[in-house]
Amino acid sequence: MNACVFCRIVAGEAPSTKVYEDDTLCAFLDIRPIATGHTLIIPKTHAAELDDLDADLGAEIFRAGHRLALAMRRGALAADGANLILNDGRAAFQTVPHIHLHVIPRRKGDLFGVTKGFLLRRSHDPAGTAASIRAGLAALDDDNARDIEGTQP
Amino acid sequence: MNACVFCRIVAGEAPSTKVYEDDTLCAFLDIRPIATGHTLIIPKTHAAELDDLDADLGAEIFRAGHRLALAMRRGALAADGANLILNDGRAAFQTVPHIHLHVIPRRKGDLFGVTKGFLLRRSHDPAGTAASIRAGLAALDDDNARDIEGTQP
Repeated sequence: MNACVFCRIVAGEAPSTKVYEDDTLCAFLDIRPIATGHTLIIPKTHAAELDDLDADLGAEIFRAGHRLALAMRRGALAADGANLILNDGRAAFQTVPHIHLHVIPRRKGDLFGVTKGFLLRRSHDPAGTAASIRAGLAALDDDNARDIEGTQP
Repeated sequence: MNACVFCRIVAGEAPSTKVYEDDTLCAFLDIRPIATGHTLIIPKTHAAELDDLDADLGAEIFRAGHRLALAMRRGALAADGANLILNDGRAAFQTVPHIHLHVIPRRKGDLFGVTKGFLLRRSHDPAGTAASIRAGLAALDDDNARDIEGTQP
């Protein structure tokens, strides 16, 4: 069995609630969210730290994080913003040694909720949460398609 | 006068201690660092939030952050890791409405120092700090040049 839990998630050998996936990366809900919708984006190939991560792949991970942050502002989560956080190395509080970008949706005045979430880190209704993020991604794609149509003669 | 302090830094109308600059982005020391070497990377064109930021430019900002994190592990700063943080929106504690990626070098067991830094946020010897990060970037370029030579027949 692969010793890396994130590699096992990629291989489908460990459970996760995925919100996005492509050839090189996947995004799934943090099982100990500090806020509802707290998502992790990982490269599918193992890289422990930034020193081991291909720069192009790093850029793609951030691109996916950017897109997820926009998606979280749309749909049922109705976020007002997001924290994108990558902790590189144990000294920087990286707990799982497989690079992951946190995307944490935020709402105005949610400080108490996030503080509570940080202490409790419990997941409620992951299936519904993932569905609302995927709906946000779809809404974002619709917006982009409309923008492209709008620029055509 | 431009109302955005980061746009003024880009234009050279406000002071900053730059550690890196290219056509599309620049990196400079946070004037209220939570750790020595705390750097901000910004796009040169104004974008308040991720909703206003071009996805390619976002990817380039992260690419620069990745490179700076590696540079901080080299040279005098001798970091053991880094936190890369982008706060998108006031709800997520974004304080300056011009997108910026924090790159915060971390060292093993520095929690007390970072906590103190978070409270005091004072800069010591910014010129020396910036010089050590630039030396790290140069060391990284040397490593990469050596790797490329090593792969040639």
